[in-house]
Amino acid sequence: MSTDATRLWEKGAALDAAIHRFTVGDDPYWDRRLVHWDCLGSAAHARTLSRAGLLDASELGSLLTGLATIDARARDGAFAIPAELEDCHTAIEAELIRSCGAAGEKIHAGRSRNDQVATALRLFMRHHALDWAPQVHRFIEALAQRAAVDGNVPMPGYTHLQPAMPSTVGAWLHALAEAALEQYRALLDLLGRLDSCPLGTGAGYGVPLPLDREYTASLLGFTRVQRSAIDVQNSRGRMEKYFVRVAADFATLLEKLSSDLILFATAEFGFIGLPDALTTGSSIMPQKRNPDVLELLRARGARLRTRLSELEAVTAGLTSGYHRDLQLTKEPPIRTAEELPDMLLIATRVIADFTVDRDRLQTAMRPELYATHAALALTTAGVPFREAYRRIADEVRGGRFDANRAREWRDNPTGVANTIWDAIRDECTALRSQCANVAARIASAESALLPASE
Amino acid sequence: MSTDATRLWEKGAALDAAIHRFTVGDDPYWDRRLVHWDCLGSAAHARTLSRAGLLDASELGSLLTGLATIDARARDGAFAIPAELEDCHTAIEAELIRSCGAAGEKIHAGRSRNDQVATALRLFMRHHALDWAPQVHRFIEALAQRAAVDGNVPMPGYTHLQPAMPSTVGAWLHALAEAALEQYRALLDLLGRLDSCPLGTGAGYGVPLPLDREYTASLLGFTRVQRSAIDVQNSRGRMEKYFVRVAADFATLLEKLSSDLILFATAEFGFIGLPDALTTGSSIMPQKRNPDVLELLRARGARLRTRLSELEAVTAGLTSGYHRDLQLTKEPPIRTAEELPDMLLIATRVIADFTVDRDRLQTAMRPELYATHAALALTTAGVPFREAYRRIADEVRGGRFDANRAREWRDNPTGVANTIWDAIRDECTALRSQCANVAARIASAESALLPASE
Amino acid sequence: MSTDATRLWEKGAALDAAIHRFTVGDDPYWDRRLVHWDCLGSAAHARTLSRAGLLDASELGSLLTGLATIDARARDGAFAIPAELEDCHTAIEAELIRSCGAAGEKIHAGRSRNDQVATALRLFMRHHALDWAPQVHRFIEALAQRAAVDGNVPMPGYTHLQPAMPSTVGAWLHALAEAALEQYRALLDLLGRLDSCPLGTGAGYGVPLPLDREYTASLLGFTRVQRSAIDVQNSRGRMEKYFVRVAADFATLLEKLSSDLILFATAEFGFIGLPDALTTGSSIMPQKRNPDVLELLRARGARLRTRLSELEAVTAGLTSGYHRDLQLTKEPPIRTAEELPDMLLIATRVIADFTVDRDRLQTAMRPELYATHAALALTTAGVPFREAYRRIADEVRGGRFDANRAREWRDNPTGVANTIWDAIRDECTALRSQCANVAARIASAESALLPASE
Amino acid sequence: MSTDATRLWEKGAALDAAIHRFTVGDDPYWDRRLVHWDCLGSAAHARTLSRAGLLDASELGSLLTGLATIDARARDGAFAIPAELEDCHTAIEAELIRSCGAAGEKIHAGRSRNDQVATALRLFMRHHALDWAPQVHRFIEALAQRAAVDGNVPMPGYTHLQPAMPSTVGAWLHALAEAALEQYRALLDLLGRLDSCPLGTGAGYGVPLPLDREYTASLLGFTRVQRSAIDVQNSRGRMEKYFVRVAADFATLLEKLSSDLILFATAEFGFIGLPDALTTGSSIMPQKRNPDVLELLRARGARLRTRLSELEAVTAGLTSGYHRDLQLTKEPPIRTAEELPDMLLIATRVIADFTVDRDRLQTAMRPELYATHAALALTTAGVPFREAYRRIADEVRGGRFDANRAREWRDNPTGVANTIWDAIRDECTALRSQCANVAARIASAESALLPASE
Repeated sequence: MSTDATRLWEKGAALDAAIHRFTVGDDPYWDRRLVHWDCLGSAAHARTLSRAGLLDASELGSLLTGLATIDARARDGAFAIPAELEDCHTAIEAELIRSCGAAGEKIHAGRSRNDQVATALRLFMRHHALDWAPQVHRFIEALAQRAAVDGNVPMPGYTHLQPAMPSTVGAWLHALAEAALEQYRALLDLLGRLDSCPLGTGAGYGVPLPLDREYTASLLGFTRVQRSAIDVQNSRGRMEKYFVRVAADFATLLEKLSSDLILFATAEFGFIGLPDALTTGSSIMPQKRNPDVLELLRARGARLRTRLSELEAVTAGLTSGYHRDLQLTKEPPIRTAEELPDMLLIATRVIADFTVDRDRLQTAMRPELYATHAALALTTAGVPFREAYRRIADEVRGGRFDANRAREWRDNPTGVANTIWDAIRDECTALRSQCANVAARIASAESALLPASE
Repeated sequence: MSTDATRLWEKGAALDAAIHRFTVGDDPYWDRRLVHWDCLGSAAHARTLSRAGLLDASELGSLLTGLATIDARARDGAFAIPAELEDCHTAIEAELIRSCGAAGEKIHAGRSRNDQVATALRLFMRHHALDWAPQVHRFIEALAQRAAVDGNVPMPGYTHLQPAMPSTVGAWLHALAEAALEQYRALLDLLGRLDSCPLGTGAGYGVPLPLDREYTASLLGFTRVQRSAIDVQNSRGRMEKYFVRVAADFATLLEKLSSDLILFATAEFGFIGLPDALTTGSSIMPQKRNPDVLELLRARGARLRTRLSELEAVTAGLTSGYHRDLQLTKEPPIRTAEELPDMLLIATRVIADFTVDRDRLQTAMRPELYATHAALALTTAGVPFREAYRRIADEVRGGRFDANRAREWRDNPTGVANTIWDAIRDECTALRSQCANVAARIASAESALLPASE
Repeated sequence: MSTDATRLWEKGAALDAAIHRFTVGDDPYWDRRLVHWDCLGSAAHARTLSRAGLLDASELGSLLTGLATIDARARDGAFAIPAELEDCHTAIEAELIRSCGAAGEKIHAGRSRNDQVATALRLFMRHHALDWAPQVHRFIEALAQRAAVDGNVPMPGYTHLQPAMPSTVGAWLHALAEAALEQYRALLDLLGRLDSCPLGTGAGYGVPLPLDREYTASLLGFTRVQRSAIDVQNSRGRMEKYFVRVAADFATLLEKLSSDLILFATAEFGFIGLPDALTTGSSIMPQKRNPDVLELLRARGARLRTRLSELEAVTAGLTSGYHRDLQLTKEPPIRTAEELPDMLLIATRVIADFTVDRDRLQTAMRPELYATHAALALTTAGVPFREAYRRIADEVRGGRFDANRAREWRDNPTGVANTIWDAIRDECTALRSQCANVAARIASAESALLPASE
Repeated sequence: MSTDATRLWEKGAALDAAIHRFTVGDDPYWDRRLVHWDCLGSAAHARTLSRAGLLDASELGSLLTGLATIDARARDGAFAIPAELEDCHTAIEAELIRSCGAAGEKIHAGRSRNDQVATALRLFMRHHALDWAPQVHRFIEALAQRAAVDGNVPMPGYTHLQPAMPSTVGAWLHALAEAALEQYRALLDLLGRLDSCPLGTGAGYGVPLPLDREYTASLLGFTRVQRSAIDVQNSRGRMEKYFVRVAADFATLLEKLSSDLILFATAEFGFIGLPDALTTGSSIMPQKRNPDVLELLRARGARLRTRLSELEAVTAGLTSGYHRDLQLTKEPPIRTAEELPDMLLIATRVIADFTVDRDRLQTAMRPELYATHAALALTTAGVPFREAYRRIADEVRGGRFDANRAREWRDNPTGVANTIWDAIRDECTALRSQCANVAARIASAESALLPASE
């Protein structure tokens, strides 16, 4: 009996230790993040079994208490997943069998590890997607606040990395804010996609027990049931891809932010400075302060994107139904969930703390930046643009170009209008409120699943 | 003057032919798909210039007629993009200068090739995303119709590619339908993301002319202006990624469908057959009929996903603003736009035309498939699941397992309820209607842009 | 002073803890595998400093003893890399300063962490590449031994996954052996590429001290100096890519092996069986034995390939010289070094232990497999092949095809000639001997670097 | 009969046109590059059939003349591959049947399109790999010549994109040369890998005819036969990967070169200039000269790498033997073969023609660059390095650092010794000679295959 509890599918045959290690892989490590979510999923399953008459009230109570205890221990770092138990799901069932006896032996009726894992990961991803929202909000707010301070400082606009047209620090901050806002909206799309309950589909072919899946879904705070049992397994990796994509898109934005600032912080550009807390020194060169933080933000952004390749490589070409390959779809979302918040936090700090060298920026505003303005000024006087373009090009080539012809724009750098920042803030507030509604619905459901652990 | 028209930025210096070829790349080839969209974008820009007083009515009329003529010629395959003119945008402006004189020389006032290209691609992608919708609809409809015919035919359900539990042809079709429906919804998300107008942002730093961007947007059927000029350029590649992702997700679904059917069509499985029209022969082996169509569907699915890697590789690490690297973001969405419809068409045909070998499927329904049912039947009699599992496992190992204990399920294979297919169809209808609304709004705007070419 | 030792580039400014964690990342974890190699590199550097007169004999002795002690402690798991010391290089220097005083403060003269890290990783990769060789050897040997037993068992040859022509188990094993042999050769290419010494190039721009780089290289068992200091930094990620590629190519081979066996192990094919030790059960389905080991071999193969994407994403687009981004090039080779041996071990075991079901294989040898033989038999009698092809195709279609016409081949399945296996073994022996020579040269150099730790 | 010639595996059944288009894909387009190589492969096969007594002398002569004619027509652009004939192999066989009658109907005896395609691609890749060699040679020579002119011009060395230590233009050129040399060596590795003859293995399971494969191999200039017929098919995509990797590694080097020069060419760095022929203008900004050529070199480098992802995606997870998926492995090597030479040509031109702004470079040599030299100077006087590091760091921070302490190095910028460039040139010469030997052997074989076409 105790051996049965050790590894649930073990039917007496010896398993070679090396092979066991190979099959277990890093699951005990990554699964530590899933214990809480499996406890919630298990509680919902137990309640559904009870409603179907497959557990009596005392068995249900015992299991819920057992789960609450495991959950509390895991929170305190006191619930281990021994390698011989493979993953958190097996470890939790084994512990329930130990603590609840026959009730523990009953909990796996009508579910499979297949739908169980899908459920835990769905809950995990949903939680983290919601968790990212306030950090995105703060990041955009930092951009807006920064724009209020330095928004009107002139800065060259570059195309092909060559000075192109006059711009401002505010226009640069605004571009970041719009891109972040786009991802903020994408977070809500993501929450919609994750909002369907996989539990109750068993190994991928349904369960011949009268389980009320709508009930299970509502217990877990889902508004929809994922109807097709086969699709639940087919969606392993797919849901994870949606999740990682949103993070990867944020990361790509932070990568661009970093690339910009690393360039602006060179001695040659010199547009911005970084406080000591955001730089590190060299092991050999005494004079150096390096923008390591920005370089790592850039590199982590690039690396995060490759998690998508990982998910795709592992799931590519698989036929329908569960395959053990899917075990390797856990690491990418779990690492992503942990890394994005760090990146957003650092980026927010960078936006708040970099310094602007107004003198260097002013010096960089060479007259040629105004050539387009001069040409367009001619067009307002009726000169066809191509003719105007050729005239100004000749002046520039001949050294006769006088930027004062574009003085009007020089003296009034067009920053970003306050009304635009207001519109962005309004949209953020609306998104925050939508996220908060989802969060509240979920929190209400989740908090009712387990008895409060003392 | 005529030389100026040839290559607009050419200022007299000689350009080496090899270098020219290198910079032009494949643009003249891919850009053939963009001529129509650039004509629309140019018409909207001309109308906006006119409203700002920068073109008079006769100039505007001349330009619109010129654009309509180019558009009509391109539709007839009679508008060439010579390599020396680099891309469709240059070729179109050159033709306008040729046909409209000074008005042609005026059209580029207040825009840059940078926002012009972004606009043409946005219109192109929006068009194709909408175009995919009815094909997705037909694909799901084919699944539903097929399910009506063969839905209740029993089929083993596999996990780890081993016979696991009883399933049906209908359950397999249902899984595909749900996954397709998920992408159908994603199409609408995509249309929302693409719905912002980049035109009017120039090279990436705005335009010092009083152009009414809201007006331009409405002319082109957009509900929003893409506010940040820098973000317009930063979003090159990003919008393309969103577009390709939806196609890649469809393609991944079709890849799975193909993998399944290739397996089911093996001599050893023998569950399905393919009509001759969907197979090809061998150059050396006289007896062969091969599922090439399915293999290519699978491989194209895999290839389509790598377009995302291409977009990411080309744009990775770039600082803000336009870089010529972005030229290489054109090919991935253009190829994608052309390939996905072929794939959906073929897949729909496959779903309609494969044959089901009911005898082979019946033979494949080995008794062991019912072991889980037997174990769960014991649990309804109060046996804890783990105990039931061990008992049945012993029976199977000992050759004593009798599938008749699960007769109830054997005789009534649980197909997919009609109500579920009805729900899917309802959702499809609602999505079609949403797409149709978007399409109508856009068609109405686009059709008003150019005078009807006779 | 002690604080200076804590973090060597720290110049008094406070560093925010969160930022520190972000910059340190997982280095303390991965660097545990690099301690030994940094001790060797540091010993070579100290000896080179000593030869240049920058360390006296007693200082050198003290440092070498210190390094040997650190190395021994690390071997026993007793040398920690605290997060506040960032990486193993800093931790080792700090420990040398603690234990050797002024000599410890002297060791970093003339080197930088930049060339130090490159050296440690080069040594690490060289070691593991050599370490893979015997495992590859055993894998090929297992294939040869297996062929000796079952090589002549007939097996259908498939194209398009359809029965195509007669083949044998031995022909399948032979294909795997040839592909493995190709990678075995690639291992030697890899060793050649890794055989250049980066140490002595400092931060990437050389060192203004009279250090004898040829001497350093020979101390570390390299036959070449990596001449360009800038290229040493530019080759970070590049060398790692070469290393991971060889592993990825092996992994791709093992992925194919797994895909084949998973298919052959289906109930429908039934060509092979797996011993219990290579299968696992199901948490819910009592009857199941699943080929998890093969599925994980396949999935790990796919995942390993994405390490290349990771290396490419992180290094793409970087300008010349060191960037902190390169820190993220450590994890991919370190994980690869650990995972490939597991995969080769498991694959070797699989080859040794799978069972062949000769009856099922015989049954699968349908007559149509011999259609090509029949057509070619006609060509030896002068019938043009296309004519012969049409005749046989007609016979097959008309149900008139008689495989006995190809009886000669049926009765003598063409296995793989022993001479071919002999040739493969000879080539393996030659490769082993080449690897052994390299290994001996390196072992001799490395063992002389540090005094034996008591 | 003529219909049989149209599509060789067609056995009367109608094939839907859309499906046909789908299966043919872009083959007629890409295959234009393969006609020559298929003619050579077919000639070798015909000669082998003849030696085996399956063709008489007159049939062989007729076929060889037919192939020479096709080859000549293809060279003149006068051999079309109609879409209904699918690929060049079918088109060539059809033309032989048309022009040689029964001999044409005999040529496919003992081969399959499977080994035929593998052979044509092997020959194609071998040719192009050899073709790249002189271009690589010229690229390295351009670097050496450039170093002879500007090698000693001082240039700051950067780490983290911050000024780090003094360096020279020559040191930068040297880094590129070493990396190119590494790939030059890799070209020879590649040629070794491609040097095995796939022809004679049929569909993947051998050919029951007494064909002398060693003879075929020697006719085609291969030194080895690819022994395993299954491995020939399994190596589709794998050989292509080796080929593309070498190109991708070159491309990555050119990407770095471009990234460096784009940065050096900014107004803010201003280290280098580009001649007009290497820049282009803007459609809107009259003053601009943009480094489009460098940006496209960078972006094409990035894109070329994704061809590897394409090859991997398409072949991943396939079981042994031929699958139609492999058709999609053609485009990546063919595009690569065409693009790399353009890139090398452009890069060589860039190296020859960029201008060096010595004044800007001199100005960029700030005193702090010499801080490390100053610290190391102290160590030669016995100060422990960490102590020296702290002293200099204090001086820099306190504004007291005097770079004159490192005057010795300032006045003698350590360029790259001539002996090093000599060594590089010697190695290049040796590699060229090795390539030339291979090329001569192959040319001698290939030129003997077909009769000279008049």
